[in-house]
Amino acid sequence: MAIALTFPDGNVKNFDDGTTVLAVAQSISVSLGKKAVAGLLDDTLIDIEAPITHDGKIAILTKDDDQALTVLRQTGAFLLAAAIHALHPDVQLGGGAATDDGFYYDTDRQGSQLTVDQLPALKAKMAELAAGSAERVVLSAADAKAQFKAQPYKLKLLAQAGDAVLAFKLGDFVDFGEGAILPSLKDVKHFDLLSVAGAYWEGKSSNPMLQRLYGTAYFKAADLEQDAKDRQEAREHDHRTIGRDLDLFFVDPKVGAGLPYWMPKGATIRRVIERYIIDKELADGYEHVYTPVLANLDLYKTSGHWDHYREDMFPPMDMGDGEMLELRPMNCPSHIQIYKHHIRSYRELPLRIAELGMMHRYEKSGALSGLQRVREMTLNDGHTFVALDQVQEEFKKILRLIMDVYADFNISDYTFRLSYRDPKNTEKYFDDDEMWNRSQTMLKGAMDDLGLDYYEAEGEAAFYGPKLDIQTKTALGNDETMSTIQLDFMLPERFELTYVGKDGQEHRPVMIHRGIVGTMERFIAYLTEIYKGAFPTWLAPTQAMLIPVNPDEQGDYVKELHDKMLKAGLRVDMDLRNEKMGYKIREAQTQKIPYTVVVGEAERANAGVSVRKYGETHTEEESTKMFIESMQAEVKNYSRDGKTKPSDVASQF
Amino acid sequence: MAIALTFPDGNVKNFDDGTTVLAVAQSISVSLGKKAVAGLLDDTLIDIEAPITHDGKIAILTKDDDQALTVLRQTGAFLLAAAIHALHPDVQLGGGAATDDGFYYDTDRQGSQLTVDQLPALKAKMAELAAGSAERVVLSAADAKAQFKAQPYKLKLLAQAGDAVLAFKLGDFVDFGEGAILPSLKDVKHFDLLSVAGAYWEGKSSNPMLQRLYGTAYFKAADLEQDAKDRQEAREHDHRTIGRDLDLFFVDPKVGAGLPYWMPKGATIRRVIERYIIDKELADGYEHVYTPVLANLDLYKTSGHWDHYREDMFPPMDMGDGEMLELRPMNCPSHIQIYKHHIRSYRELPLRIAELGMMHRYEKSGALSGLQRVREMTLNDGHTFVALDQVQEEFKKILRLIMDVYADFNISDYTFRLSYRDPKNTEKYFDDDEMWNRSQTMLKGAMDDLGLDYYEAEGEAAFYGPKLDIQTKTALGNDETMSTIQLDFMLPERFELTYVGKDGQEHRPVMIHRGIVGTMERFIAYLTEIYKGAFPTWLAPTQAMLIPVNPDEQGDYVKELHDKMLKAGLRVDMDLRNEKMGYKIREAQTQKIPYTVVVGEAERANAGVSVRKYGETHTEEESTKMFIESMQAEVKNYSRDGKTKPSDVASQF
Repeated sequence: MAIALTFPDGNVKNFDDGTTVLAVAQSISVSLGKKAVAGLLDDTLIDIEAPITHDGKIAILTKDDDQALTVLRQTGAFLLAAAIHALHPDVQLGGGAATDDGFYYDTDRQGSQLTVDQLPALKAKMAELAAGSAERVVLSAADAKAQFKAQPYKLKLLAQAGDAVLAFKLGDFVDFGEGAILPSLKDVKHFDLLSVAGAYWEGKSSNPMLQRLYGTAYFKAADLEQDAKDRQEAREHDHRTIGRDLDLFFVDPKVGAGLPYWMPKGATIRRVIERYIIDKELADGYEHVYTPVLANLDLYKTSGHWDHYREDMFPPMDMGDGEMLELRPMNCPSHIQIYKHHIRSYRELPLRIAELGMMHRYEKSGALSGLQRVREMTLNDGHTFVALDQVQEEFKKILRLIMDVYADFNISDYTFRLSYRDPKNTEKYFDDDEMWNRSQTMLKGAMDDLGLDYYEAEGEAAFYGPKLDIQTKTALGNDETMSTIQLDFMLPERFELTYVGKDGQEHRPVMIHRGIVGTMERFIAYLTEIYKGAFPTWLAPTQAMLIPVNPDEQGDYVKELHDKMLKAGLRVDMDLRNEKMGYKIREAQTQKIPYTVVVGEAERANAGVSVRKYGETHTEEESTKMFIESMQAEVKNYSRDGKTKPSDVASQF
Repeated sequence: MAIALTFPDGNVKNFDDGTTVLAVAQSISVSLGKKAVAGLLDDTLIDIEAPITHDGKIAILTKDDDQALTVLRQTGAFLLAAAIHALHPDVQLGGGAATDDGFYYDTDRQGSQLTVDQLPALKAKMAELAAGSAERVVLSAADAKAQFKAQPYKLKLLAQAGDAVLAFKLGDFVDFGEGAILPSLKDVKHFDLLSVAGAYWEGKSSNPMLQRLYGTAYFKAADLEQDAKDRQEAREHDHRTIGRDLDLFFVDPKVGAGLPYWMPKGATIRRVIERYIIDKELADGYEHVYTPVLANLDLYKTSGHWDHYREDMFPPMDMGDGEMLELRPMNCPSHIQIYKHHIRSYRELPLRIAELGMMHRYEKSGALSGLQRVREMTLNDGHTFVALDQVQEEFKKILRLIMDVYADFNISDYTFRLSYRDPKNTEKYFDDDEMWNRSQTMLKGAMDDLGLDYYEAEGEAAFYGPKLDIQTKTALGNDETMSTIQLDFMLPERFELTYVGKDGQEHRPVMIHRGIVGTMERFIAYLTEIYKGAFPTWLAPTQAMLIPVNPDEQGDYVKELHDKMLKAGLRVDMDLRNEKMGYKIREAQTQKIPYTVVVGEAERANAGVSVRKYGETHTEEESTKMFIESMQAEVKNYSRDGKTKPSDVASQF
């Protein structure tokens, strides 16, 4: 029997049933046979020696192809498993795989799990084993079952694997499931083992927790080095690491996955931001409210969330008497209740309702991460109800507020994305052509009026209206939507919102959803990462640490200074322990406290302080009075250098 | 057949089976026969002509007995039903009854329900019908069914009523269910009809909503007058009425029973109080945190809430994977997580954790009321972890804080209740005699040290420890627990809390639960009632209303003043409408705004204002500068007269 394989250039050739990628490559040229590392059969990665038994599209991969990296890493996972088998034969093996940035293998051992301490020896063993060469064996289901009879996790994987499996053999070690490995193990040369973390079997929290060993591999030494640098960089920025080191927050999956506990220092940052944003919004004409996190499920049926967003919602609670209560996934229906509570007049528009609104969204436990992806969150939410002819002015006003807030947080790296409906697919959207055309023109006009650069994205609108997203860059360079301004024509219809116009008639308002800094959780994760935990003075949980040169001699003076600074509204702490001064100063630096204040005899005599700013090495002597006043000014000015003030930003437009 | 009836004095007499209260009374004396209005058979109220068919305890009621008032009001309900039948024969009747302060009858009519507009005519009809006399008829189940065949609600009530019912007949109107009515309808003389409100059939929200007509009745005219005065007084204080009139909050049972929406003005009051209490606590050594409202159910199993408090908790949510999440009914387990997150040293104690913690408690929908009884609430919660020998000092410190806060809110009418375990019943309590004796002595000692009056209540302690409750008086004179300080020996055991002592050994801390102002909901309900909605300047949602004599002439000046006051941190509004000045001033008074500020030509010329304080009738001319400064001082001083300052209160001890 012959099979027909179609090449990327469209050519079709016949081969014997059971041929391999290696044979196909060799049939083309000797050199391709030597360079081939794996193949793609119908876009699925296959091993160079896997038998091909049906017609299909074929592509031959060499080291130059991106996907070869996956094969390298699958080979890394195979070698890691072989090394574990060699050094720890009593460890049960789970599965292994390549990931976007490396590979892993799952392991289990009753009583004493593998830890990072075992990684160096395993890495050495892998290097040793890479000198050998692996053999391919196709095992029948029965043979495979016999081969892995002492490996319960492998047996479970086999049950899902079909009739025959392609196994790889290296010495007395046999494994399957990698799919494809390199022809030569010697190519696994630039690799490292990185970490160990718990992982539920098959990702389900009801299953046993295995230990997952992580590693990475590259074809080039330089790439491995760069990766190590990037990882170090990411570690230094990672809000989870910083959050632990600075004692800002923690999440305990045993008590509640995705439900952060904010420790006092993290809570201080959050409280300062919450008060700041509320005051900013009040000054900008918003009315702040508190609305309940629960509502009858009917509210979310009316809003459409129950129909279109259910899989992100928590299960409803049956309260008896036919009452079903639901934790809200969004605050818009709540703010609509506030709007509807009174008959509204055109005189009240734009009506701006804002809240730090707590919401709950169901996320799979595997997707949860620190403060970044959580199940309970508090959104800096706001909804403006406007007449259609007020949309453009209100849009500009919101944008000014957003940019003013960005300036206060020193966020300058962002872009504007204007999202329209897809003109070729208008039936997917709220059905009112005139509304769409008019409102898209209004948003674009507003951006042009303001002289702002933006890019337009057709087909990126919400189905209820066009929007502007403001994309910021995270510390690691990823895009993240920080702020959004969304027009909504649908909810006013669904909830039959009206206002009485100048003409005495009822009109339908437009609703604008807007977020400035997003959820407190995500925003503080973002800030922690861009500041690397060194929060500016106005946000820092502890703004100054007071250290006497000798606690016995300047202790009382430091206590007085401490009280004086507290009364001046500053968050200050003092370190009166009997430790070396240098040790205390280093500790204050580790805690990334903006000001370390040292007081010796000279300072006490002069009613002064020696001040060292975080990240700087020199100290400066100042009078206590001057120091307190300059700190107060710094806090008031959102720790900016004084060149840019909120009013300057607002007046750009 | 004879039956034996036992009188209150212990005498037993025999009567014929089927005798009545009237016959029994007459058998004693002619005058008692005339004065009798109903009887108690085995402590159950029965009609004077109801047949008595078994042995039992009997008591004869006259108008002088308290329970006669119930009979009067049941007669009122009967007459109300008869009047409805006479004037609105198409109305379906539900049930009626006497209440603690009056009576009601439920009605239903498709399309056009009865309203307060119908009450005057119904009242007149009742007076007319009271001239007649009612006949008693015992109806068999079959007869009753035929009699009420056109009354579906009555048929449902009949189904629950048993084999035979005692019915009352007045002209062509027949009713049952009142149980007992007066022998003479003429005694229903001093009565009134008061209001109409929706009430679910049988109190279940899944049933149809009926209209409940309320009235009251007394034997004496003076009592009815006093009742009217009391109702007026209660209405003026009622936070639900004030909340609606001042637009502070609303609850919509359709969207969520017991789930208040705080409108902008109510939200302002709440925000000011929240910031105030957090700042007060931070200054007093508390560390504020944010903890999630959800946790794995296991947490509440460990704490004991699930075993002992389940009926007040919301139903758990099944998240899949065996994970059950629960809305917390209390914050203590959350704060214990914060404590347990680190190994604690004696140096850290007392460790004071505080939070504005949102909680959810299941209350039956019938028990819900305004902000007073809700299902979602935010508690001014705090937990102090102390070593046993620190209990007394910490207790005093908390008490000082509470009294300081009371002074700021001008709360002066309160009493202290020290609650101990019941010495005769010690097995009901956490089992550690020495702990109890020592801690009760400590609390008492602290109160004595502080020279405070208190009363001791044995058997009123929580089962986990003794406590101090601070009882305030509501506007209507009812006792309410505002603050509490509770020692807890149990949760530290259950959660195995420890700290490392000076000796390097692990010790068990004591936990102190403390609340200062309780939940935001209940506290603001309380304040609204004691202030009758006239919030002091520091709390008032709008602190000043600016009114130009002529908007065309002083409008610009008023706008400038408005901006100046906003920048000075004041909550100020202006009324530039083309309405009469007197009308605007009256409206500001109705809104109970602390300062009404009028600006005419003279004021503009002098850079001044004419100020009228809420509740006063004279106006005072002041310079704008002086006025703003005095308002700022008033806000800073919590609107007190300056005689008492927080530091004075704290220094009382």
